[in-house]
Amino acid sequence: MPLWKVYHPEGLYTAEDKKALAVRITNIYASIPLPKFYVVIIFEATPKGSCFVGGEPHDKFVRFKIDQIARTVPGPVREWWLKALDKAVAPFVKDRGCDWEISIDETPSDLWSLQGELAPPFESRAEKRWVEENKASPYTLDEKLPIKLALTPGLADR
Amino acid sequence: MPLWKVYHPEGLYTAEDKKALAVRITNIYASIPLPKFYVVIIFEATPKGSCFVGGEPHDKFVRFKIDQIARTVPGPVREWWLKALDKAVAPFVKDRGCDWEISIDETPSDLWSLQGELAPPFESRAEKRWVEENKASPYTLDEKLPIKLALTPGLADR
Amino acid sequence: MPLWKVYHPEGLYTAEDKKALAVRITNIYASIPLPKFYVVIIFEATPKGSCFVGGEPHDKFVRFKIDQIARTVPGPVREWWLKALDKAVAPFVKDRGCDWEISIDETPSDLWSLQGELAPPFESRAEKRWVEENKASPYTLDEKLPIKLALTPGLADR
Repeated sequence: MPLWKVYHPEGLYTAEDKKALAVRITNIYASIPLPKFYVVIIFEATPKGSCFVGGEPHDKFVRFKIDQIARTVPGPVREWWLKALDKAVAPFVKDRGCDWEISIDETPSDLWSLQGELAPPFESRAEKRWVEENKASPYTLDEKLPIKLALTPGLADR
Repeated sequence: MPLWKVYHPEGLYTAEDKKALAVRITNIYASIPLPKFYVVIIFEATPKGSCFVGGEPHDKFVRFKIDQIARTVPGPVREWWLKALDKAVAPFVKDRGCDWEISIDETPSDLWSLQGELAPPFESRAEKRWVEENKASPYTLDEKLPIKLALTPGLADR
Repeated sequence: MPLWKVYHPEGLYTAEDKKALAVRITNIYASIPLPKFYVVIIFEATPKGSCFVGGEPHDKFVRFKIDQIARTVPGPVREWWLKALDKAVAPFVKDRGCDWEISIDETPSDLWSLQGELAPPFESRAEKRWVEENKASPYTLDEKLPIKLALTPGLADR
């Protein structure tokens, strides 16, 4: 669901760094919960002299550009969410003396597919199965129903 | 109009593959119809170890990130449209044993220019000329009018 | 605030070109005014044969993809704004015989942080300080107030 593009100076991160950062980011989304494989992270090394901040070349700058697709962040938690992401990346930017910036776009969840399948509804049976299998696969009409199905919402105990 | 970014493992596609995939994608948009040159596709090779899915490096994963600008896909055809795109790319992902994901963003059509010209209105004379000439060029106020001009919409035959 | 991705043919721009283009772009935004360091520009060289326009490889094409975050361009100036940007880039595309295209997306300003700080409100004391210091830093609740504070808007002289 989220697509993270991490624009970083060439040579800043080792393979182990990338893996560790990817895991930190993935875990935040998995805790929502979301299927882990919804989280895609692409590291893109910017060669020296190809990144400018304020009109000046900046070779210690990391720019996180994020598309969130599956969920819209509700108003009251938007600031909290941003802070949570910032905390996840801090060891790889702040603690290394880099400048950094994060921006998130929210793109239409109905214009998104994985392995040719549209993502199943939030908290549906299909989503639950996708989480368990950790991969996208075809699902039935039945599986589009919510896990907790209440046909007549009301005050009664469930 | 659409800008396709194709993030693919380094070495996955030959020059011929890229050309063939670009043509398949372009033809779908041309059939709307849209001027062919509205379709821009940029292939970006991701070096080994720079793409993560679910926190794990994934070196057989292709991520299509699409900006659609000229048109908003109407509600009833959004799913169909996604399936049509998926079918176009299938020979280059599914049939090669790769995993893949597609997401589309819809960005403002009035914040878009080609060769310094704003795109002319949908089905205008200018758009028709652009299709024929297959390139962007200045157009007059007259050419902003629709090809089929009906000043007084009504029930009469046209 | 704006993130500019400049997809250009490999070898088209020298380091001096990049710097000059970055300064031209940055100055437009600084004149709004915006803190200069809000402007991030990443040049991305597309290798020969990896950029397609209308289904054909196009190796003299520059694609500007812009995210504007801090401000939404008001209706009446959207066309003017696009023309202003086009004028800024013209010496680096039109005057060099390249084709080019610009598109702008407007992404949520509340899902954006710099150095872990959310950008302060438009025309606030904190923004003024950020402009002066040309860098992001923590700010107080007081500094979120507008520079020109009028608690009771009315007809009286100020």
